[in-house]
Amino acid sequence: MIRLSELAAQIGGRLEGDGDILIRGVGGIHSAGTGEISFLANPRYEAEAAVTGASAVIVSEDWNRECPAALIRVKNPDKAFARAAMLFYTPPPRPVPGVHPSAVVAEDAELGEGVSVGPLCVVEAGVKIGAGTVLMANCCIGYGSVIGTGGLLYPHVSIREFVRIGDRAILHNGTVIGSDGFGYSVDRNGVRTKIPQIGTVEIGNDVEIGANTTIDRARFGKTAIGNGVKIDNLVQIGHNVVIGDHAVIISQVGIAGSTSVGERTILAGQAGISGHLKIGSGVIVGPQSGVTKDLPDGAYVMGGPAMPVAKMKRSHAEIMLIPKLRERVRKLEEKIRKIEGN
Amino acid sequence: MIRLSELAAQIGGRLEGDGDILIRGVGGIHSAGTGEISFLANPRYEAEAAVTGASAVIVSEDWNRECPAALIRVKNPDKAFARAAMLFYTPPPRPVPGVHPSAVVAEDAELGEGVSVGPLCVVEAGVKIGAGTVLMANCCIGYGSVIGTGGLLYPHVSIREFVRIGDRAILHNGTVIGSDGFGYSVDRNGVRTKIPQIGTVEIGNDVEIGANTTIDRARFGKTAIGNGVKIDNLVQIGHNVVIGDHAVIISQVGIAGSTSVGERTILAGQAGISGHLKIGSGVIVGPQSGVTKDLPDGAYVMGGPAMPVAKMKRSHAEIMLIPKLRERVRKLEEKIRKIEGN
Amino acid sequence: MIRLSELAAQIGGRLEGDGDILIRGVGGIHSAGTGEISFLANPRYEAEAAVTGASAVIVSEDWNRECPAALIRVKNPDKAFARAAMLFYTPPPRPVPGVHPSAVVAEDAELGEGVSVGPLCVVEAGVKIGAGTVLMANCCIGYGSVIGTGGLLYPHVSIREFVRIGDRAILHNGTVIGSDGFGYSVDRNGVRTKIPQIGTVEIGNDVEIGANTTIDRARFGKTAIGNGVKIDNLVQIGHNVVIGDHAVIISQVGIAGSTSVGERTILAGQAGISGHLKIGSGVIVGPQSGVTKDLPDGAYVMGGPAMPVAKMKRSHAEIMLIPKLRERVRKLEEKIRKIEGN
Repeated sequence: MIRLSELAAQIGGRLEGDGDILIRGVGGIHSAGTGEISFLANPRYEAEAAVTGASAVIVSEDWNRECPAALIRVKNPDKAFARAAMLFYTPPPRPVPGVHPSAVVAEDAELGEGVSVGPLCVVEAGVKIGAGTVLMANCCIGYGSVIGTGGLLYPHVSIREFVRIGDRAILHNGTVIGSDGFGYSVDRNGVRTKIPQIGTVEIGNDVEIGANTTIDRARFGKTAIGNGVKIDNLVQIGHNVVIGDHAVIISQVGIAGSTSVGERTILAGQAGISGHLKIGSGVIVGPQSGVTKDLPDGAYVMGGPAMPVAKMKRSHAEIMLIPKLRERVRKLEEKIRKIEGN
Repeated sequence: MIRLSELAAQIGGRLEGDGDILIRGVGGIHSAGTGEISFLANPRYEAEAAVTGASAVIVSEDWNRECPAALIRVKNPDKAFARAAMLFYTPPPRPVPGVHPSAVVAEDAELGEGVSVGPLCVVEAGVKIGAGTVLMANCCIGYGSVIGTGGLLYPHVSIREFVRIGDRAILHNGTVIGSDGFGYSVDRNGVRTKIPQIGTVEIGNDVEIGANTTIDRARFGKTAIGNGVKIDNLVQIGHNVVIGDHAVIISQVGIAGSTSVGERTILAGQAGISGHLKIGSGVIVGPQSGVTKDLPDGAYVMGGPAMPVAKMKRSHAEIMLIPKLRERVRKLEEKIRKIEGN
Repeated sequence: MIRLSELAAQIGGRLEGDGDILIRGVGGIHSAGTGEISFLANPRYEAEAAVTGASAVIVSEDWNRECPAALIRVKNPDKAFARAAMLFYTPPPRPVPGVHPSAVVAEDAELGEGVSVGPLCVVEAGVKIGAGTVLMANCCIGYGSVIGTGGLLYPHVSIREFVRIGDRAILHNGTVIGSDGFGYSVDRNGVRTKIPQIGTVEIGNDVEIGANTTIDRARFGKTAIGNGVKIDNLVQIGHNVVIGDHAVIISQVGIAGSTSVGERTILAGQAGISGHLKIGSGVIVGPQSGVTKDLPDGAYVMGGPAMPVAKMKRSHAEIMLIPKLRERVRKLEEKIRKIEGN
C-alpha cells in the first residue's frame, strides 16, 4: 500500500485530489476499483474515465474532462503508469546460476559465468552459452549451437543444431529455432523427396521471439534475423528468409522461403508473404494481407493480394458504389426507351 | 463384440433387421465395414447410407431412405451413436495420484488430494494445484500459479508465473499460458524497448484450451478467460484480452491486445480481431474474417474487413454482376450512337 | 577446402575458369563471398549473377550471361549445388541406439532394434517403436501408440494415446499428434459439453510433419494421413480429416473436421478449408484462400471464398475497371441530357 501523494512524487506527477488515499495496485480504466490507480493514454477510453471505479487516474497535463477519481498529471501517462505499476510488482525469484541436477548437459558444453540451466533441460555437445543467460525448465539446445550473453529462454524452447543466437535474446515458451525448411524435389507421379536442409539460423542481438513461433533453418547458408527484431507468437519464418534490423513481426504472420524483409518493417497479424520477395525497409503490411510482389521502401499495403492502402480503400469504395451505378444505368435505359418510343 | 439386439437395447433404440449380428466397433458412414455400426445425423451423408458397408446404421425415427444395413431407430442419432461408440472404447489407464519420482516439484508447492504429477514435470515454488488435477508428462507450472480442482493438463503444457486457472480445466499439449504480451516503446530510429508485462492471466472454470495455443499475460492487470470458454488449437490471444463466458474460439484465430469478446460469441477459424475492440455477446464472426470495428450484441459478420453477412453477400453478388452491367452500358452506347446518327 | 577442379569433377560438371581456386563453402548468389560457390537455377536471380561475390557459380549448360566468377556447367544446377553443399557439410553425430538413463520408458514398451530414446523422453505403456527410429530429447509417446521403423522425432514431439504412425516418419519439434478434436454439444443457454474424442490418428509411411503443427484425433474412427504426405509448420488438421497420399500442406493451413483432401493436392500457406468438404485429387488451393465448397479433381482455386483462379482474376480485373465503367455512364448521361435538351 502506497499513499497517493507519495506515489505522485515517485512518478514525478502533480497531484489533484486527496493525497492520503492508500493505493494497493493498478488496473485498467474500466476494471480498476477502490484502492487502485489507472491511467488514460488512449483517447478511445476517455468516456470511461468519467465512470471509472479507480481511486486515482494518471492523465496528461492538459486533460480537462470529468473524472470522479483523484488525478496525477504527468507529461507521458503511459510511461508514468508503467512506473507506477512496477511499484506494486514483485517479480518471481531469479533462477539461480548453475546447472540443475536433473538437466542433461554434454561434458564439452561451454557455459559462461552465471549461466543458469534449469531442471530437465538438455544441452547437447559443442554448445556454447554466454555469461548470465538463463535456460528455464525443459529447454533443448541442439548440437553445436551458440547462444550469447544475458539471454532468457522460457520453458520448452527448442533449438536445433548449429543455430547462432546473439546477446540478450528473449525466447518464449515452445519456440522452435532451426527446424528443417520445407523443401522437396518432386517426380512425375507427385512423389516428393526431401532436400537436405543443411543451413542454419543466425539471430542478432536484442531479439525477442514469441511463444510457439517457428523459424526454419536454411536449405544452405542461413536464415538470418537482424538485431532488435521483435517477433510475436505463432509466427512462421521459412528457410533462407532474411529479416532486417528492428523489424516487427506480429502474431501468426507467415513468411515463405527466401524472402527478405527490410529494416524497421512492420508485418501486422496474420499477414502472409510469398517466397523469393524483397520487402523494403520501413514498410507496413496490414493485418491478414497477402503480399505477392516485391515492395519498395516505405510502402504501406493491405489486402489480398496486397496493394497500396489508398488504392485498396478506393477499390473497396468502388464496390460499395456499384448499386448507385446500376441505378444510373437503369435510368438511362428508361430514358432511351422513351426517346426511342418517340 | 456385442450382439446388435443388445446394442439397440443399450442405446434405447428400435431395431429393424437381424438382431443376431455381432458388432465389433463403430465407423463413419463411408468407411465402416462388416461388423461395424455407423450413424446418420447429417443429411449431407444420406446418399452414402445407400451404399454403406456397415452392418448396422443408427438413424432417426422417421428416416425412410434405402439402406443395405440393419437399422436402429432413435430420437437423436448423434447422441445414440456417441453412446454406442463408448461401448467399444477402452480408455488409457488413468494416471496414478502422486508425484512421479522424475518430476521436479518445489517443496512449498501445495498439491491437493489425489493430484497426479507426471514424469519430468516441473512445478515451481508457490504453486497450488487443486484436488484431483492431473499433470501429464513434461508440464511446467511457473512460480506462484494456481490451478483448480479436477483439471487435466496434457504433456508439454507451459504455464508461466502467477497464472490462475479455475476448476476442471482441460489444457492440451504444448499450450502456453501467460507468455509476455507483445509490447514495446519505440524511439525515433525505430528501435524498440520492451515494456514489462507484469500482469497475469486468469481463467475461469470448465475451460478447454487446444494444442499449441498461446495466451499472453497482461501488460498489467489480467488477461481474462471466462467460464466455459472453449478454445481450439493454435489460437493466439493477446495481452489484456477479455473473453466472456461460454465463448467459442476456433482454430488459428488471433485476438489482438485489449479487445473484449462477449459471452457465447463464436469466432470461426483463422479470424483475426484487431486490438482495443469491443465485440458483443452472441456475435458470430465468420472464418478468416478480419474484424476492425466494435461489434454489437448478436452481430453476424464475415469478410475482410468484416461486415454484416447480408451486406457481404450483396457486395459479392454485385461484383459478379459487373459484366452484365457493362453489357447494359455497351448497349446503351450503341443506341445513343444510333440516335445521334439520326 | 576443396579445389574447384576437384569439386567440378565430384558434381559431374564442366569447369570454366581457374580450377585452382580453393572453395571453403557454399552460399546464395547475393550473399556468397570469396572462397564460396553458389548456383543459378531460378531466372529471378540472373541479374545478381553479374555482381556476385562468389568465387564460382554452378550454372546450366547453355547459360550465357555475364558473371565475374568461375563457372561449372551442369544439366541441373539445383541438384548439382545440393551435391556440392553436402561436400562441405558435417552433420551432427547420430543419436546412439538405446535408452538414455534419464528417459522414463514403460516396462512393456516394445523398442525395435537400434531404437534410440533420447534424454528426458517419456514412453508410456503399450507403446511399440520400430527398428532404427530415433526419439530426440523430451518427446512424449502416449499409451498404446505405435511408431514404425526408421523414424526421426525431434525434441518436444507430443504423441497422444493409440496413435499409429508409419515408417520413416519425420516429426519436427513441438508437433502434437492426437490431441482431442474440437467437439461439443450445446444447450439452449450456449453452455457446451465436451463430446468424447475416442478415435485416433493414423499416419502412413514417409510422412514429414513440421514444427508445432497439431493433428487432432477423430471423434471416433480415425483422422487419416496418407503415405508420402508433407506437412509444414503450424498447420492445424481437425478431427476425422482424411489426407490423400502425397498431398502437400504448407505452413499455417487449417483444415476443419471431417474434410477429405485428395492425393497430391497442394494447399498453400494460410489457406483454410471448411469442415465436411471433399477436396479432389491434384487440386491446388492458393495461399490464404478460404474453401467453402467441394472441389473436383484438378481444380485450381484462390481467394476467399475460393473460386477458380481464372474467375478470381476476372473478378479482380472487373473491380479495377469500375472507374472506367462509371466514366462511360457519365458520358452517356451527358449525351442523353443533350438529346433531351433538343
